[in-house]
Amino acid sequence: MSIAHPYLMFLGDAPDQLAAKTAQGVAHWRPDWCVGQLRLPGCKADLRLPDMTLDQARAAGVKTVIVGVANRGGLIGQSWIVVLKQALEMGMDLASGLHKRLVDVPVLAQTARKLGRNLFDVRHPTRDFAIGNGKKRGGKRMLTVGTDCSIGKMYTALALEKEMQQRGMKADFRATGQTGILIAGDGVSIDAVVSDFVSGAVEWISPDNDADHWDLVEGQGSLFHASYAGVTLSLIHGAQPDALVMCHEPARPHMRGLPHYKLPDLQACIDANLAAARLTNPAARLVGFSLNTSALDAAGAERALKECSQKFGLPVVDPVRTGVAPLAEALARV
Amino acid sequence: MSIAHPYLMFLGDAPDQLAAKTAQGVAHWRPDWCVGQLRLPGCKADLRLPDMTLDQARAAGVKTVIVGVANRGGLIGQSWIVVLKQALEMGMDLASGLHKRLVDVPVLAQTARKLGRNLFDVRHPTRDFAIGNGKKRGGKRMLTVGTDCSIGKMYTALALEKEMQQRGMKADFRATGQTGILIAGDGVSIDAVVSDFVSGAVEWISPDNDADHWDLVEGQGSLFHASYAGVTLSLIHGAQPDALVMCHEPARPHMRGLPHYKLPDLQACIDANLAAARLTNPAARLVGFSLNTSALDAAGAERALKECSQKFGLPVVDPVRTGVAPLAEALARV
Repeated sequence: MSIAHPYLMFLGDAPDQLAAKTAQGVAHWRPDWCVGQLRLPGCKADLRLPDMTLDQARAAGVKTVIVGVANRGGLIGQSWIVVLKQALEMGMDLASGLHKRLVDVPVLAQTARKLGRNLFDVRHPTRDFAIGNGKKRGGKRMLTVGTDCSIGKMYTALALEKEMQQRGMKADFRATGQTGILIAGDGVSIDAVVSDFVSGAVEWISPDNDADHWDLVEGQGSLFHASYAGVTLSLIHGAQPDALVMCHEPARPHMRGLPHYKLPDLQACIDANLAAARLTNPAARLVGFSLNTSALDAAGAERALKECSQKFGLPVVDPVRTGVAPLAEALARV
Repeated sequence: MSIAHPYLMFLGDAPDQLAAKTAQGVAHWRPDWCVGQLRLPGCKADLRLPDMTLDQARAAGVKTVIVGVANRGGLIGQSWIVVLKQALEMGMDLASGLHKRLVDVPVLAQTARKLGRNLFDVRHPTRDFAIGNGKKRGGKRMLTVGTDCSIGKMYTALALEKEMQQRGMKADFRATGQTGILIAGDGVSIDAVVSDFVSGAVEWISPDNDADHWDLVEGQGSLFHASYAGVTLSLIHGAQPDALVMCHEPARPHMRGLPHYKLPDLQACIDANLAAARLTNPAARLVGFSLNTSALDAAGAERALKECSQKFGLPVVDPVRTGVAPLAEALARV
């Protein structure tokens, strides 16, 4: 698969801004691809893109309508289907980050098949993967790991892609989750892959490459998250990272979704991730930290960055407050 | 699901004894359940059970026909379908350990539906699982872990079930793979579960229990297997083991299927498994070792057991040569 752009961002009747989180991520990282938004009556979300009808979107060259909203109960309502079917008829593909599949809506599946359009349900892998083989591939790989889920692993990898490309380095973001896939145009939602094939799926999305090329692989979960650690371990082994960036939120009170679990000690988390990475790449090393200091004020954030840097003697950034230049420089030295 | 016994073991036209490995495991561990075998012309496998027709099986009270053979290309041939359909019509259920599903054979699916019979495709989970929650459950749990795949983890757990039940301890084998499921009558083939839900599936197969009850959870893979380690980590976290038994084959030259990977150092393997287990059960400890010495002669086996015991100061058994009594005693002290 490869999702064609430009995109029209379909927000449906999203009840609030949070429901459009996926669409917002895409619009933030791919401003050139996202030419407009389509909102239905009652929509409470706004990406601050031009509102467009389907006719206007077609005139603007849109190739794919992105369904980038979470709706109540995960359903795809009738008011959406009318618009999405029309988009297919006007020559556009559809891509969705919802659990509920577009291909399971009969009228959309039939219309797409009849007209030769693509339906991308990016949460659901549509191909089979081989078992991981652990064989060393050419090129370099960076993987974002973390003390917890939802802590900045995708954001950090995308910020590094932008920074490294601006410096003329060969670097590509490799998506492992639904928002990342809509941003990259391809990838695999690895948490939806059958467990036996996850490391093989990661090997597939990050193939052999030029010796000076960096794959910037989007991390998932945490080795210390009781629900998802197995997904993370398969990802680490499949990615064969040369470089790890540790993502952490200093002020977080407990593991996401697990109030009975504290965040791990940072040193223990580093040790476990390096040990895991060195199984498939003995040269793996930690190059720096990406802190999410959104819950701290400016002084608190500065203190957190400084403390971490002094403790570990490595570059520490907050991609939002400071940018990721020190990490890009560290990768250039690997 | 719960597969009803007694079983008739269907061997089809298995080309050799190895092709009937699954059936052989079931017949070994459940001799009372396996009342006969049904072999088609050309079958080269033999479980040394009475050969039976379907009529004889029905007269012997058989409730389920077990398709316990691997066939060429994973197909279910026409000569098999004729017999299996007849078994359904005579009142028996079917259970299969094949990749290819019985429910995907239209005539079997239709016949089963019409007559209200069950088709168990034990490699394929038929229900959804919740995300693992990591909450402590009542009862005690033993998990077999290992330096590699196919090293004795199922065999050790089953031997412990037998030994502990003979001693009057409350103990149940919990199956996580297809052969184990046919032996236990239920369980989940966790390597076929979507990665996000593996630890939740293991929590489900090993629920809250009496304080003095042992779940003997069948291990899978190895934390040091580049293809499957993520499955293993999810299993460790979901099982919340109080006790680990480390399974190892001293003479094995390399990781199964990965000639470019050596087996891990035993101490490193113990450390990694204990660290992983302590995330969801801080009291987890190693209680002993189960060595597979099948490639050694009697003197070599004795030497291997003794060396391991002296090095780690814990009980060491080969379940085939010595039985598992010392491990059962160690568990009784937990």
